[in-house]
Amino acid sequence: MKSIIIASTSTLHGGSYLEYLLPTLKQHFFNCKSILFIPFARPGGITHNEYTQKVAAEFATINIAVKGIHEFENAENAVKTAEGIFTGGGNTFLLVTQLYQQNIMQVLSETVKNGTPYLGTSAGSNICGLSMQTTNDMPIVYPPSFQTLGLIPFNLNPHYLDPEAQSKHMGETRETRIKEFHAFNSIPVLGLREGSWLEVKGRKITLKGDLSARLFLKNQNPEELATESDLSNLK
Amino acid sequence: MKSIIIASTSTLHGGSYLEYLLPTLKQHFFNCKSILFIPFARPGGITHNEYTQKVAAEFATINIAVKGIHEFENAENAVKTAEGIFTGGGNTFLLVTQLYQQNIMQVLSETVKNGTPYLGTSAGSNICGLSMQTTNDMPIVYPPSFQTLGLIPFNLNPHYLDPEAQSKHMGETRETRIKEFHAFNSIPVLGLREGSWLEVKGRKITLKGDLSARLFLKNQNPEELATESDLSNLK
Repeated sequence: MKSIIIASTSTLHGGSYLEYLLPTLKQHFFNCKSILFIPFARPGGITHNEYTQKVAAEFATINIAVKGIHEFENAENAVKTAEGIFTGGGNTFLLVTQLYQQNIMQVLSETVKNGTPYLGTSAGSNICGLSMQTTNDMPIVYPPSFQTLGLIPFNLNPHYLDPEAQSKHMGETRETRIKEFHAFNSIPVLGLREGSWLEVKGRKITLKGDLSARLFLKNQNPEELATESDLSNLK
Repeated sequence: MKSIIIASTSTLHGGSYLEYLLPTLKQHFFNCKSILFIPFARPGGITHNEYTQKVAAEFATINIAVKGIHEFENAENAVKTAEGIFTGGGNTFLLVTQLYQQNIMQVLSETVKNGTPYLGTSAGSNICGLSMQTTNDMPIVYPPSFQTLGLIPFNLNPHYLDPEAQSKHMGETRETRIKEFHAFNSIPVLGLREGSWLEVKGRKITLKGDLSARLFLKNQNPEELATESDLSNLK
């Protein structure tokens, strides 16, 4: 049975890394003595080791060991045999490029669909959708495809930002960007605000956290979904 | 001799479309009775016709006729025979995909390098650099390549935004995103604030408008360049 946490962000303003999620993660990974960490998104360009150490320090507080996928000789085996898997945030173009280059996009999808508990934050959440086409990130590398894990039957926009009424900036708002996506694609897009996450248990998808999320469907007005909404039928 | 205006934005807050640029454009296109408009970036998903009409209305005020490239049977010929060319803003992924699909990326580059006056705003400016990899846009379509016109020997980040000190949002700042680009690329990136533009005359590249621009070089601290700075040696 699928068991997945898909979080908008790893860190809330004023909080430390993963802090707000730790009670949830303790439950989510309760059967795991160790988890596999995928550091490929490399936020700010930090190394795989530096990123893995940061994650290991937090998971140590709930008594879970962390090993980075770059430490394994065979990445495919590392995914298949993991007790649990966490893909961290950073740049989604880089993450997706690496997953394809290391030939683990498909095995990661299959493994998580078969029940290995998964956590994604930010870029690691973006890849849970059908494609990475609603990411906010810069195209710093050219991925062989925009298709992603397809663990849920829609797309995500993590770190969703409401338009600022008083802004004098003329760049597109997040809502405008998603509207442009829908001029060429019909996949639903869920704007997940910082502090929200999706809980996937088998076929059930539930919105968690204190906030509402913003749902964008092609040719329809956006809709606010309250926390605890059931998204199982969204596709 | 190259003659190019590369503007951060088409529109300033409180102003109308192209308004702040019109005196500059009147001079820039002074030899042109008509210009070719490339509407492929389709902001907000509007049609090519709608976009072209909006542009034509503004250029009418300086007595220049506008024809959209989609109105021509042969796009390549339209580029080669244009008196002047304007590529408007919208989504850079869409624009670049269309330029490749219509097989005019190279001829557009050659034509402008040979002296046909060119104006770009936003996405239409992004493509003047070596690659589109420092765009802010969403990857709503998958382009065959990220390489662009290479009219200048560096990259641009239009609509450049300074970090907001009081922000509680945890998504990456523009500066962080450009730093991530430089973890994998060595091309200089110029953050062009709204109201700034580059004037290219032959080999001379000058920063115009009232504001300074922010220059990012790999492994160096960002630098503020005053308006009227000479960027001819940046590469």
